[in-house]
Amino acid sequence: MAEKNIPYKIHLTEEEMPRAWYNVRADMKTDHRPILNPGTLKPVTADDLRPVFCDELVSQELNDRDRFIEIPGPVLDFYRMYRPSPLVRAYFLEKELKTPAKIYYKYEGGNTSGSHKLNSAIAQAYYAKAQALKGVTTETGAGQWGTALSMACGYFGLDCRVFMVKVSAEQKPYRKAVMETYGATVTASPSDTTQVGRKILAETPNTTGSLGCAISEAVEAAVTSDGYRYVLGSVLNQVLIHQSIIGLEAKAALSKYGEYPDVVIGCAGGGSNLGGLMAPFMADKLAGSASPRFIAVEPASCPSLTRGRFAYDFCDTGKVTPLAKMYTLGSSFIPASNHAGGLRYHGMSPILSQLYHDGYLDEARAVGQVSVFEAAGLFARVEGLLPAPESAHAIRVAIDEARACAETGEAKTILFGLTGTGYFDMAAYIQYNGGVMEDYIPTDEDLKRGFDGIPELPGVE
Amino acid sequence: MAEKNIPYKIHLTEEEMPRAWYNVRADMKTDHRPILNPGTLKPVTADDLRPVFCDELVSQELNDRDRFIEIPGPVLDFYRMYRPSPLVRAYFLEKELKTPAKIYYKYEGGNTSGSHKLNSAIAQAYYAKAQALKGVTTETGAGQWGTALSMACGYFGLDCRVFMVKVSAEQKPYRKAVMETYGATVTASPSDTTQVGRKILAETPNTTGSLGCAISEAVEAAVTSDGYRYVLGSVLNQVLIHQSIIGLEAKAALSKYGEYPDVVIGCAGGGSNLGGLMAPFMADKLAGSASPRFIAVEPASCPSLTRGRFAYDFCDTGKVTPLAKMYTLGSSFIPASNHAGGLRYHGMSPILSQLYHDGYLDEARAVGQVSVFEAAGLFARVEGLLPAPESAHAIRVAIDEARACAETGEAKTILFGLTGTGYFDMAAYIQYNGGVMEDYIPTDEDLKRGFDGIPELPGVE
Repeated sequence: MAEKNIPYKIHLTEEEMPRAWYNVRADMKTDHRPILNPGTLKPVTADDLRPVFCDELVSQELNDRDRFIEIPGPVLDFYRMYRPSPLVRAYFLEKELKTPAKIYYKYEGGNTSGSHKLNSAIAQAYYAKAQALKGVTTETGAGQWGTALSMACGYFGLDCRVFMVKVSAEQKPYRKAVMETYGATVTASPSDTTQVGRKILAETPNTTGSLGCAISEAVEAAVTSDGYRYVLGSVLNQVLIHQSIIGLEAKAALSKYGEYPDVVIGCAGGGSNLGGLMAPFMADKLAGSASPRFIAVEPASCPSLTRGRFAYDFCDTGKVTPLAKMYTLGSSFIPASNHAGGLRYHGMSPILSQLYHDGYLDEARAVGQVSVFEAAGLFARVEGLLPAPESAHAIRVAIDEARACAETGEAKTILFGLTGTGYFDMAAYIQYNGGVMEDYIPTDEDLKRGFDGIPELPGVE
Repeated sequence: MAEKNIPYKIHLTEEEMPRAWYNVRADMKTDHRPILNPGTLKPVTADDLRPVFCDELVSQELNDRDRFIEIPGPVLDFYRMYRPSPLVRAYFLEKELKTPAKIYYKYEGGNTSGSHKLNSAIAQAYYAKAQALKGVTTETGAGQWGTALSMACGYFGLDCRVFMVKVSAEQKPYRKAVMETYGATVTASPSDTTQVGRKILAETPNTTGSLGCAISEAVEAAVTSDGYRYVLGSVLNQVLIHQSIIGLEAKAALSKYGEYPDVVIGCAGGGSNLGGLMAPFMADKLAGSASPRFIAVEPASCPSLTRGRFAYDFCDTGKVTPLAKMYTLGSSFIPASNHAGGLRYHGMSPILSQLYHDGYLDEARAVGQVSVFEAAGLFARVEGLLPAPESAHAIRVAIDEARACAETGEAKTILFGLTGTGYFDMAAYIQYNGGVMEDYIPTDEDLKRGFDGIPELPGVE
């Protein structure tokens, strides 16, 4: 059923794997507003960040000049375990939808961490090892990032302490077990092991946790432990740099067959997946050489781009991090227990926020989880891959776009990111299969409570 | 770290994917003894089998002439979703073991069913669909076969009824959920939905079930339902034919780099994985053109090759199936609740049994599950893949062989089958990580009880 000899799966060779990550920030027309020290309201310096992040990652975080950053040899070696990842032509889905659209997805779930998160985890673990640290701390939502970091730390022999959002830890005991198999220590967050965790528990004893809470705990654990640094799986510039490998490979694979996307679709929680997938295509758009349409898909339960404010805000619930100018629902906003745990973040990558604000990231679309699981089930049946709920957000919109093409007769080329598998999300599938899944859509009143927590910063724009 | 430009993963192109399966039986020096009708003790005929199996699969089951059988187009189309599967050079494991051996593994876990079982499931579902049947029934142990069949039936729109060994159904609720996501009906076995199930429950109310029991129930459900046939994921000749694609691809991938295995290792429950992996190499051995060493690895808790008898026996506990000459522990033998549910079968493929009896399958080795999980954990850490407990049996012996090479300095080429992932086996990993896993080794008395149930057939050899 293949056309023009385009195979179902396009594999790059290991020699064709990119040797450098791409830093979109160097090409942005307007850089994102600087990250601010909440005490001084001045831009954070490398010195401010070094107690929290590894030195090299601090450099990457602040790097607004270098378009490309060389991938270290040991990271390339590890990448060969699971990269280049396949770019799949979704022939079966196209047939099912009777669409003239050509649908491609970059499949990042074929490694044991089950998601794209490993691309940045191994880089961050490598830099920590190179700096002779003892270990790292982090938070995890759905568990994908924590699993990836556990694998990376297990490989380099680093200690790994993971704060896992409580609702995910409860829904996904086996995720925890995978992390422990790789030698990590997993703590449900909020916990009583940190000051900030105890404070949050005192204020909201029944909270199911959030990425924002878990970040606060992980940062505290890092800065109060000798030889540890904090690492983060999304939101940060450094993570978008590492994840650019998704888009670079996708672009190279498409170009082998003379293809280029009209539409690029990714789920967006903190923004690392979409940021990575769209990076090289965004480069073309910024350079004026192509004009793909970018769509960020977020859960209706946590609609930071579609209903949030573009404002300076804390990156965590405990307000221990610097302030970032981003689309935010307020750092105190705790989303309902939607099953896409990886998308339950109150803010959005400053890079993506700026690109959205400036119109380069064309559209954000919020979708309810019931329609997301409907898309996931259809996709699983016809394409043979059981997607993670996060990834199924992108699938939902890719299907909608392809169906629109069936209406109009347009043969658009659609590219979306299939970030991970749903093997550890079966509790959610059971709920959907049983017909008892509900959508959670925050009311304006819910949002107002979150917005009320956004700091007022006189004189700062 | 790659040598001789052999990449970490060798991908065949879709054009290089085999177009025909290989039937080792056509090349065997001594065919296996015929399957007998238990009533007449005469060889079963196609007419005997047609009420149970699809017509085309009956032909394949009895086919001892055709060396190659063409893969139908719709099956090839489906194969493209996840095949050719990668052949991986285990550079990281070699380094960890400081071995001069070259280790390769054929990785069959990269599809949503999580194992090699999909190779036969889609073929069997296709033939059922082509015969215009309503649906199929089957049993599943670890859940890999049931998941694969559910996917295949979901793809072709066939009804799928799965009897799942009770201990697995209890250990793996999420496996059940995946099957249900693909539209299958899953029943824990023994159940009260069949006569044979009710009988087994009456005799042994506390049984945790076995593949043998579940087969009896599935066969009964098929032959008593209009428009249904029974399908099986291992043991049968037809399944070994379909699984030959594993070995055919592995051989083609190795030959691209001038490589050929000295040792071929596979876990063996019913024998489909090892049978498929070794098939084209066995062809060379039978033709006298090469002499690779074949090792079957089985659990110490269910040692059909290493401690069983080569005798005619029933393929199921309920004694509703024909009699096969094979290595068997007796159809009434119910193994301890070892975590490798897919290897808990009392018998062994008649083809593999005959090849072992005749010395072409060189060696069988029984290993305890504690040492198996030790190997699994090591492999997961250094190779980045979390293996299924079944697959980890092969990993255990591959590591032992590679370590022996480190002692002797021999640079053997070792090929093993990595049949599946362990994402649905985390309860077992939790037990191992917690240090509370035990080995189950049947006593001679345990075995004697099983042997006592092997039928005495005067005049039949």
